[in-house]
Amino acid sequence: MEFHLQPIGIIHSPFTDKTQTPIQASRSQAKGVVEVYPEYAEGLQDLEGFSHIFLLYAFHESSGYSLLVKPFLDDQLRGLFATRYPARPNPIGLSVVKLIKRQGNILKVEGVDMLDGTPLLDIKPYVPDFDIRTDTRYGWYAARNK
Amino acid sequence: MEFHLQPIGIIHSPFTDKTQTPIQASRSQAKGVVEVYPEYAEGLQDLEGFSHIFLLYAFHESSGYSLLVKPFLDDQLRGLFATRYPARPNPIGLSVVKLIKRQGNILKVEGVDMLDGTPLLDIKPYVPDFDIRTDTRYGWYAARNK
Repeated sequence: MEFHLQPIGIIHSPFTDKTQTPIQASRSQAKGVVEVYPEYAEGLQDLEGFSHIFLLYAFHESSGYSLLVKPFLDDQLRGLFATRYPARPNPIGLSVVKLIKRQGNILKVEGVDMLDGTPLLDIKPYVPDFDIRTDTRYGWYAARNK
Repeated sequence: MEFHLQPIGIIHSPFTDKTQTPIQASRSQAKGVVEVYPEYAEGLQDLEGFSHIFLLYAFHESSGYSLLVKPFLDDQLRGLFATRYPARPNPIGLSVVKLIKRQGNILKVEGVDMLDGTPLLDIKPYVPDFDIRTDTRYGWYAARNK
């Protein structure tokens, strides 16, 4: 079974170089612009009611992967799926960003951490009931070198 | 540009019928089993340190989409991207589940909301620093018929 995905837009960010991108969206106050292709614009209706959204996107500059990786925040090898490392069997990125404003098919967002020109695959509303879990444990990340 | 994805595993759940699936994972205490194909098992190392994980998967039973949809929890048409509706241009599903136990390539999880046999695309650790946003507004969902 194979799935074919086509970008529904493009994410513009200040980061043109992999070495510059912040580690994850919550650590970034960087502003970005999500340009949804006009043919999908109607699907953005009601999105402005949400303060935060998930962006799903392609890690388009990654190729290949290792099952053990050294995360940017750590100095030990970790299982790939226990990290947010970009080079993955299915290189899909996931970030929560703050939605500042929608103007038609253009979303102004804050907290981007992806490269400029990243292909957008999907947008989902961030819904606390679904997406917030408290009482969490978070393994190596909790013990990382800060 | 087109991206090709191949499942890295399969999600087993109690839900064999679309009409039975819970609305979202947080409302479900249903137990499930994530079977990661053995060739990816090494990448699961360290995952057991995390209490919660994101599952990214294919909405394999959805085909086609509308840009305006009536969400399961609402009675008005909403922009597709302001909903978690399964039929989407890129039909990728996203759920946070609780990781109960890992045994090699098998993950026992709680809070599944996807169909039995769902193709798994990726696993990411749920990291509060990245994934929890407070002070949220959540549009139509806040005003829905409960």
